[in-house]
Amino acid sequence: MGKLRIAIIGAGPCGLAQLSAFKQAEQEQQVELVCFDRQSDWGGLWLYTSKIGIDVNGEPVHSSMYRHLWSNNPKELFEYPDYTFYNHFGCYLPSHLPRVLIYDYFIGRAKANNLRQFIRFNTAVRHVDFNDDKKEFSVEIEDLNTNSFECLSFDRVIVANGHYHMPNMIAIDGLDQYPGRVIHSHEFRGADEFKNQNLLIIGSSFSADDIAVQCYKFGAKSITVSCRQKPIGYKWPSAIKDAAMITRIDGQTAHFNDGSSVDNIDAIIICTGYRHSYPFMSRRLCLQADVTEFVPANLYKSIFWIDQPFVAYLGAPRQIFSFPLFDGQAALVRDVFLGHIKLPDKNEMKIDVDKWRTREKSMSPTDFFAMVDLQTDYMKDIINLLHTYKNNQSLLTFDFDKGGEMTKRFLTNKVNDILHYRDASYESIVDTNHSKTIDICKSWIENMDDSMENLLNDYRKIL
Amino acid sequence: MGKLRIAIIGAGPCGLAQLSAFKQAEQEQQVELVCFDRQSDWGGLWLYTSKIGIDVNGEPVHSSMYRHLWSNNPKELFEYPDYTFYNHFGCYLPSHLPRVLIYDYFIGRAKANNLRQFIRFNTAVRHVDFNDDKKEFSVEIEDLNTNSFECLSFDRVIVANGHYHMPNMIAIDGLDQYPGRVIHSHEFRGADEFKNQNLLIIGSSFSADDIAVQCYKFGAKSITVSCRQKPIGYKWPSAIKDAAMITRIDGQTAHFNDGSSVDNIDAIIICTGYRHSYPFMSRRLCLQADVTEFVPANLYKSIFWIDQPFVAYLGAPRQIFSFPLFDGQAALVRDVFLGHIKLPDKNEMKIDVDKWRTREKSMSPTDFFAMVDLQTDYMKDIINLLHTYKNNQSLLTFDFDKGGEMTKRFLTNKVNDILHYRDASYESIVDTNHSKTIDICKSWIENMDDSMENLLNDYRKIL
Repeated sequence: MGKLRIAIIGAGPCGLAQLSAFKQAEQEQQVELVCFDRQSDWGGLWLYTSKIGIDVNGEPVHSSMYRHLWSNNPKELFEYPDYTFYNHFGCYLPSHLPRVLIYDYFIGRAKANNLRQFIRFNTAVRHVDFNDDKKEFSVEIEDLNTNSFECLSFDRVIVANGHYHMPNMIAIDGLDQYPGRVIHSHEFRGADEFKNQNLLIIGSSFSADDIAVQCYKFGAKSITVSCRQKPIGYKWPSAIKDAAMITRIDGQTAHFNDGSSVDNIDAIIICTGYRHSYPFMSRRLCLQADVTEFVPANLYKSIFWIDQPFVAYLGAPRQIFSFPLFDGQAALVRDVFLGHIKLPDKNEMKIDVDKWRTREKSMSPTDFFAMVDLQTDYMKDIINLLHTYKNNQSLLTFDFDKGGEMTKRFLTNKVNDILHYRDASYESIVDTNHSKTIDICKSWIENMDDSMENLLNDYRKIL
Repeated sequence: MGKLRIAIIGAGPCGLAQLSAFKQAEQEQQVELVCFDRQSDWGGLWLYTSKIGIDVNGEPVHSSMYRHLWSNNPKELFEYPDYTFYNHFGCYLPSHLPRVLIYDYFIGRAKANNLRQFIRFNTAVRHVDFNDDKKEFSVEIEDLNTNSFECLSFDRVIVANGHYHMPNMIAIDGLDQYPGRVIHSHEFRGADEFKNQNLLIIGSSFSADDIAVQCYKFGAKSITVSCRQKPIGYKWPSAIKDAAMITRIDGQTAHFNDGSSVDNIDAIIICTGYRHSYPFMSRRLCLQADVTEFVPANLYKSIFWIDQPFVAYLGAPRQIFSFPLFDGQAALVRDVFLGHIKLPDKNEMKIDVDKWRTREKSMSPTDFFAMVDLQTDYMKDIINLLHTYKNNQSLLTFDFDKGGEMTKRFLTNKVNDILHYRDASYESIVDTNHSKTIDICKSWIENMDDSMENLLNDYRKIL
């Protein structure tokens, strides 16, 4: 029997986690891995570009990053068990980091694992289907350098292109004729562009609150945050105000469903999230779910396409744990595809999914602590299933209870002080040799320089 | 034999021209017309929205319109022979008009012809192929309201989705890390957003010069226009300067290939045009050409797909005449599909295309007058082929020589005075009862209100 041919779609955090997972099993030379990415370099969403809209290849710009983005959760929650921050940077660092350091960190593991050899860049996957007769996948790809097409055969397909690149736009009466700048958070690149402006932000989740405080930090004149639900209750500075749900835009005036309105809006930033988008998957293999769901209906363990479990989706659930969740999922995919773990039959898989969905549905959508508990239990469930290799102990022993508890602490800090929660420091969960809190050198709100040099200069002194 | 089933893709100026053309032949009840448009209303490119990026249906925003766009060529060059401006508005108007009036005008004819009944809005065409056995087209569509798919059969397909919506981005060293706003002209919505800024505009064609003067009009501090070729030589005001070809961006500094550079660039607007994009056409039917070409290689009369002439592309050539060109092409498509005109065999079609291509290639790419002559001759060629109906006399007698001559006059006016060429007035070519030049009420450069009310108030007094 030949090698198992595995296609991985996307070379961002999920795709790279998958390649790393197979690396851990490399003594088992049973697989042929090809990872496709339509971008010219790795990093997925984290590959920053100033550009928006359409890229040089005619593809939609993938990244939703902004220049001054800092992680909104502590790095200890997304530290790789087998590749720590201290290892990578050689010093203690604050818990909340600018995007360039996070990129440098996770690409660091990809480099250490020598993963680049598996990736075909500038290559868009156009169509994936399963051939029932041949019992294999046909994967049609386009080489974006030459615009030539190729149809390849694979035994397994891992979908890892993420779900933070296709905006979930909402219809707002009058928005089409609004006489000013309108963007979705996907096109938000820099808070400095909105200095001295009166902004309307529409949305209530992570993008909305982060872009609001970013714009405040960089000198927006006023920021109105309109959301559908009851506001979370952040203690905004006086320049930021919550508003009720938007009902219509009339000229530069925004009207809300409690009868109030705000005039002289200079720009509108729509932070209504993203949607799952896998236009290259044949319809019968294509995940359609709400991105706010943790347990999509058709995925066993939120990963395996129940009707054709040779297809795995990585990172599909709404995430609190991110990189460690990707590592856990990727490890399970590896173990299943290598035959170390046998999936139950379709019916059992459905029963399992239903169990998790029932739990999720019973939770209040605003109860973040319940979501943390759900994800903590999910991670423990995944880890329990994994096969043991000589070098995957760090993942198998990751203390997700500690992670869950830390998540609750950080969320509490955020609600208590939205402008300073990034100044808190947390202990590493995985790096027992370098697990201590540190005193921050500069408060996030005052630190306008988010270059790597600036940060490393400040923190390399701390022993 | 049943009715001929004809699919029209796109309900913009081309699609509506096609429906109007069939209307002229309506006594011949031989056709079943269905026009698909992914937008929620008609007008194609001219359907303005403030939004950029992705729309509520997850489709790319189609429009490239900006708030303060005025036509850059005189309305007399795109007046419908069978539906005049004077008829529509009931008064004399300036030759250069704001976009809202142009939209109102061409939609006016669509309404008068009762065309809405043929259009399925919010419907994206996903795949078109020809079934060689059944001798018909399969057209797969997606209803964007319900996300349901349907596969329909047609005898003819007319591709009319335009080629000014898919940006032709160019690679520029350092652009990804530029610390400011970068957009393609497709995402340019308002010059007022760039007030007091130092702008870099990259490009040398119609978008570049128009966006430059728009931004000047609305108070940009400085505008540098970088282009590959020798600049056209517009007499810019002192705030606008030509620059050589861009080589790289370093921080806020732009470097050019003559060794010069410009610092403190606040925003970059990339005006490098558009590209043909028909991702829904099966590869063997899909036009791939440079949008600067007037005679694409595979289209007989720049319309009929030579290898399968039941497929017609409308508006594919680079246009100087726009609406009348669409009318002429649509009339020819109608006459061919209704059987009044028989296309020559493949070899003869190729010989004809080669003849036109040879002429186009012999022209200097900057010789606009030669391009005008080419298009004038092309229009006369098309008109000569047409069948006669009782109500298409106005198109058959359109004086394209006069149009060509007017084009040269207007282009000369533009080169002589880029800030005031829009103040010139031209005589209607088609409306002999209302063919006179008028004195402009306000110079374009001083007229900041481009609402329909403002303009009609000013001009309704002129008798």
